[in-house]
Amino acid sequence: MWHKIKIMSKSKQPLILITNDDGIQAKGLNELIEGLRSLGEIVVIAPNVSRSGMSSAISATNPIRVNQVKKEKNLTAYSCTGTPVDCVKLGVNEITGRKPDLIVSGINHGSNSAICVIYSGTVGAALEGCILGIPAIAVSLTDHSPSADFTQAVKQGKAVAEKVLKDGLPKGICLNLNVPAIPEVKGLKVCSQTPGYWTKELQKAKDPMGKTVYWLTGEFLNEDPGNNRNDEWALAHGYAALVPLQLDMTAYSFMEDLKTMTEETLKNRKGGQL
Amino acid sequence: MWHKIKIMSKSKQPLILITNDDGIQAKGLNELIEGLRSLGEIVVIAPNVSRSGMSSAISATNPIRVNQVKKEKNLTAYSCTGTPVDCVKLGVNEITGRKPDLIVSGINHGSNSAICVIYSGTVGAALEGCILGIPAIAVSLTDHSPSADFTQAVKQGKAVAEKVLKDGLPKGICLNLNVPAIPEVKGLKVCSQTPGYWTKELQKAKDPMGKTVYWLTGEFLNEDPGNNRNDEWALAHGYAALVPLQLDMTAYSFMEDLKTMTEETLKNRKGGQL
Repeated sequence: MWHKIKIMSKSKQPLILITNDDGIQAKGLNELIEGLRSLGEIVVIAPNVSRSGMSSAISATNPIRVNQVKKEKNLTAYSCTGTPVDCVKLGVNEITGRKPDLIVSGINHGSNSAICVIYSGTVGAALEGCILGIPAIAVSLTDHSPSADFTQAVKQGKAVAEKVLKDGLPKGICLNLNVPAIPEVKGLKVCSQTPGYWTKELQKAKDPMGKTVYWLTGEFLNEDPGNNRNDEWALAHGYAALVPLQLDMTAYSFMEDLKTMTEETLKNRKGGQL
Repeated sequence: MWHKIKIMSKSKQPLILITNDDGIQAKGLNELIEGLRSLGEIVVIAPNVSRSGMSSAISATNPIRVNQVKKEKNLTAYSCTGTPVDCVKLGVNEITGRKPDLIVSGINHGSNSAICVIYSGTVGAALEGCILGIPAIAVSLTDHSPSADFTQAVKQGKAVAEKVLKDGLPKGICLNLNVPAIPEVKGLKVCSQTPGYWTKELQKAKDPMGKTVYWLTGEFLNEDPGNNRNDEWALAHGYAALVPLQLDMTAYSFMEDLKTMTEETLKNRKGGQL
């Protein structure tokens, strides 16, 4: 039914590319590295500073620089001046030397559930892995603090990574794993993306010169709070939430109505031509 | 079948919020403004510099500044230091005073078809309108040059804008319009997002100090070139391509297999719990 793109090398141990959006120094990244080391050879390429909220942004107009920061047996790490997506592009095309068997992005300090898949650099990096034909997982913990406890998130992330290394993922699909920041996670739920949006997003303030500036902030408004098939429900009930994400954003359900709405009317207007 | 979120004010003319990712000075933006002026009151809020390739990035850690640059009858324009998505958030929450009836992003200098929906700031801004419950359209022309001829793109964009102002769009769905840079566009095709990815993406170079830098570049590889239902086909055959995009990125087709792959195996491992 679905085409696997598992590309595990036969002769070598699996190659796992790790990135994030919180930057090379983040605790979540470094705990993920340690958690996955037993699964294969690790190459890390992560932003040199925090690049949160970068979505799938690319460095369209600026050059990108890369710097090796660690070289150990089966672990090499690089920092990069680009975005999380730039990191994946550079990692796969210039750094690893062979095609990674798996890309893991995270572990993010803070949830990337629901509509945050659209804004998240952590998820952006996983989507990029998927675009490049490599099985990819974004992993996030629902705790923003720099010293958050990643024990449960590493455990869940490693379990999913092992499954994906073994079974692969369908073409055009990657995984978004969010783990609740609680001492004992109940288990894993496969979920859909919760519908909703952020409210109270802008905080007006004055800079030291008295000029107005705006800071982004906000509260998430869950538009389907009782639905036990979505990721917000799972997280609120003590489960890790695993959402499969697809690259094809086409709203197929609306195509026929859109044809009626646009093509025919436009045809009628000018005898078949706009 | 689908819930319209048309919110046209009864007492006033439609309010149209216009943004882009090429920046407030771009020709494509300014031709779009002139093209849509007859449809209602226009508020423009666009990046103060080019923010191409910004996807749905937000200014997560930096304050945003806004500056009014134009005030005419039924047309006010602002420049903003943030991303295209920041522009939409600011426009809707702080600038317009009433909820816009329509958001139009563009006209982008360069195509945003196929997988570019993931990277595009133009599309990111339209998705943001959709997130905020406002009908939204991204418009792009397949010509990167600063002095491109936007005549056909304005005509197509205006026609679609009129339809959306009249009929609204379903909740969670926005439109991605790409127009070929040819003297006479044949008409409009409702399409799906072409599958594919960019190759040869990194160009290695030296900076004046002799240090290595990488520039993003590349060629798009169309994975389904003969499919006359997708946007690349339409553009190559002289049609404007209109793709409905949805915010819900869940890969529903893979959910059952993913449950089999993860939940059950993980349950078996530890008596129902990870």
